[in-house]
Amino acid sequence: MSKIDTLPIEEDSVANPARSSGLAFDEETFRRIGYQVIDEAASYLNGIRERPVWQSMPDNVHKAIREQELPAEGHPFEETLAFMKHMILPFPQGNGHPRFAGWINSAPAHAGVLVKPLAAAMNPNCGIGDHAGQELERRTVQWMMELCGFPVEGSAGVFVSGGSEANFTCLQAARQWAAQVDGWDVRAEGVQGMHRPFVLYQSDQGHFCIRRSVEAMGLGHMAIRIIPSTSSFQMDVERLRQQIVADWAAGLRPFCVVATAGTVETGAIDPLDDLADLCDEQGLWLHVDGAYGAFGILDEHVAPLYKGIERADSLATDQHKWLSVPIDCGCALVRNGAALRAAFSLTPPEQDEHEPWLSEYTLQRTRRFRALDVWAIIQSAGRNGLAEAIANNNKMALLFAHLVETQDDLELISSGPLSIVRFRFAPPQLRNKPLPLDQLNKAVAYEMQQRGRAFLTSTRFQSKEALRACIVNYMTTEADIQAIVDETLYVGRKVVSRYS
Amino acid sequence: MSKIDTLPIEEDSVANPARSSGLAFDEETFRRIGYQVIDEAASYLNGIRERPVWQSMPDNVHKAIREQELPAEGHPFEETLAFMKHMILPFPQGNGHPRFAGWINSAPAHAGVLVKPLAAAMNPNCGIGDHAGQELERRTVQWMMELCGFPVEGSAGVFVSGGSEANFTCLQAARQWAAQVDGWDVRAEGVQGMHRPFVLYQSDQGHFCIRRSVEAMGLGHMAIRIIPSTSSFQMDVERLRQQIVADWAAGLRPFCVVATAGTVETGAIDPLDDLADLCDEQGLWLHVDGAYGAFGILDEHVAPLYKGIERADSLATDQHKWLSVPIDCGCALVRNGAALRAAFSLTPPEQDEHEPWLSEYTLQRTRRFRALDVWAIIQSAGRNGLAEAIANNNKMALLFAHLVETQDDLELISSGPLSIVRFRFAPPQLRNKPLPLDQLNKAVAYEMQQRGRAFLTSTRFQSKEALRACIVNYMTTEADIQAIVDETLYVGRKVVSRYS
Repeated sequence: MSKIDTLPIEEDSVANPARSSGLAFDEETFRRIGYQVIDEAASYLNGIRERPVWQSMPDNVHKAIREQELPAEGHPFEETLAFMKHMILPFPQGNGHPRFAGWINSAPAHAGVLVKPLAAAMNPNCGIGDHAGQELERRTVQWMMELCGFPVEGSAGVFVSGGSEANFTCLQAARQWAAQVDGWDVRAEGVQGMHRPFVLYQSDQGHFCIRRSVEAMGLGHMAIRIIPSTSSFQMDVERLRQQIVADWAAGLRPFCVVATAGTVETGAIDPLDDLADLCDEQGLWLHVDGAYGAFGILDEHVAPLYKGIERADSLATDQHKWLSVPIDCGCALVRNGAALRAAFSLTPPEQDEHEPWLSEYTLQRTRRFRALDVWAIIQSAGRNGLAEAIANNNKMALLFAHLVETQDDLELISSGPLSIVRFRFAPPQLRNKPLPLDQLNKAVAYEMQQRGRAFLTSTRFQSKEALRACIVNYMTTEADIQAIVDETLYVGRKVVSRYS
Repeated sequence: MSKIDTLPIEEDSVANPARSSGLAFDEETFRRIGYQVIDEAASYLNGIRERPVWQSMPDNVHKAIREQELPAEGHPFEETLAFMKHMILPFPQGNGHPRFAGWINSAPAHAGVLVKPLAAAMNPNCGIGDHAGQELERRTVQWMMELCGFPVEGSAGVFVSGGSEANFTCLQAARQWAAQVDGWDVRAEGVQGMHRPFVLYQSDQGHFCIRRSVEAMGLGHMAIRIIPSTSSFQMDVERLRQQIVADWAAGLRPFCVVATAGTVETGAIDPLDDLADLCDEQGLWLHVDGAYGAFGILDEHVAPLYKGIERADSLATDQHKWLSVPIDCGCALVRNGAALRAAFSLTPPEQDEHEPWLSEYTLQRTRRFRALDVWAIIQSAGRNGLAEAIANNNKMALLFAHLVETQDDLELISSGPLSIVRFRFAPPQLRNKPLPLDQLNKAVAYEMQQRGRAFLTSTRFQSKEALRACIVNYMTTEADIQAIVDETLYVGRKVVSRYS
């Protein structure tokens, strides 16, 4: 038997090159450090309620990070962990804390935190190859469709980095489809040629990530028609129809309506069923931006508002918002799976020797194992656990709005149907004095953040600077809501007394 | 003292809503499960050499994943872990194993695996806010510039999901800059208007992700001029010059040359210094796609080939390739930091109330804490550890090429300067018989993968189906290289004997 026939593949007797480079640890060291990391993570998560929601980094911490030199030689991991413990972990964004109601960033579900080392140790490229990573993603993406009431049969979807990329991915499919309908190939020709300019539609409550996608796609944000919303902050379907008709008449190419299921300013849900009717009538693609709100459909009290979502051509969702998946995870869902593939694929379906790899459906080629976190969280919580957490957030927002209404110094601006409450600190003597109220509310948000007992942000909305509370944290209780309102009153009065 | 003054924020006496939903565990459970996960990860990583490089999923595993129902109620985490252990972990992509030389996917550095639970527990949005996440990213991105020889002063950069997005991000900056030079705003107008069509340049060895970016950007892949490469697989600068001159003359708008530092087919590095001269002369943006090869500069034997990289306008890098960062992590670097910001920012610099948030530099708004893995790996390995690992990979490729040359049944097609070797199983009696050799090499790659002792892929290159070995795994030793070559010979002869 030759040497080759027996294939002697043996352990190297020489020193492991990986260990000397510092890129790998021996098993015992890995385990020892790993336990320390778990201990840190456990006490970090368990102690979150007792620590400030947020605190600013002292100058010496800024300096320590900014001036840290690229090391020539490696250091023992214990030093790295010590730096993290003192310079990184105490200075989080604040999301995670039950009294953080700032941006729409949730707390991470523990199962998602716990599977991280396994996903990273396995480290598959979920864009290519034949392995468990892509297989689990295919299934988990179908669960996303099921959770949102999006049709599964014939649809396609992929996990992406979040709402921005999910919207971007869906809009690529929409553009590809529209050009195809008109008989040309936008991937080859681009939009630099002689075709009718594409235009698309969004309400004045839609998110700016649509603008970013449209800019990146070379359509230019002048291609977005901003449609006014009604008094309930929903897209005005009649105004939309008029604009579409005018654009067709002007020789443009209306191709897509971007509806929002859960606007970030007020939580409004556009009238999806009416929009689907209009899109059918006008031959347009209906895209739904559900980055914040798609999973709100799990709360049976608001579920009827989503009627028509099952008729959308595409849906952008964010698992790292209301499913509490650690950042980053979004999902792009497209009703006509072939259209999504047509927007990105480099392998014609007829040449595929295997089930299409997921990189055929997205800009990315190398893709991380996002499905494992999502799947593990759903395994731990079940559909009912997710629904319970989301319904509880909406309930907390109702309570929040109720508490605001009972206080003379607060003014409710909007609330519901989802978990966003918009309000102002507006003591009676200052009501109807726009400028001081704007400055006051900015100052209240700033000072509240500095104090670290609760976290709200202020944003400009309908020419008013106002506070916004987004409740997407599964830990937030009635007592937390009461505390955020109390803190707003305390800080507001303190700021007023300072200036009067 | 009023109730509000004392701010009584207390633990809820009611049951924790998080626990009942299954989204959180108590500290003891978290710790217990966490240790189990670490044990699994430790033995997974430690046992990688003893297990098959890759094995196909049996039908029952496919079925178990494909038919898994969305659970209504949550399950104990132990069940989730058991499923992972039997249905997921045994079926990796194969990267990670020291005899995986398939695609350019590396093994994860252990420090990057170990910090994952901390990054996920902290869960900051590294796009916005004032916290340690963005601060550490700013510093770590500068380290990337230092490692690659890219200028730091005045430059800007961000971590993204990988090479595709890094290239996409840099090309957005290039396009924005070119329109600005011409006096218009491409983000507002898009490329649907009356401006001269943009064109850009790439060699015939460039990566298809450039095409994908260009398509996504609405330029259309007809806007890419494919420039022939020389016999050393480098872009032919004189042919490039002729094409640029012809395009200007035709009324087009040449705006960007995409050079490659480390082509994926042969590891060639385009003549960056000459390209920088030409771009200076013609007023074009020089972008370098260093997704695979940028960090090759750390190997002093090949470093001189990168001369001119310090003159690039932008550079795309992949930390999840040659820095062994767990997937996904790329980095987009732009020499004129303002140009990168101008491509994405929604807040004009003069209105910024704080250091610009990193979401001002990218399509994403919510961004995960990628910097923590990158930083921890560099802390553990140091610049020298990274350089050692990369130089060792290049040395292993030289050995690989040498072994191929000593075997009558193998034919070397290309090797060096980086860690990619292209070759064929071509026994003397079949040389110069294109069709059987093409089929044979496809079959060899397939059968080798099935056997699980080594992993190579075959790709078509210069009209020949050939095997390609990419050595980017820090664990790969001389014995592994010998074993991969031996396995190729064994499988090749077996396949030949089957058909003769």
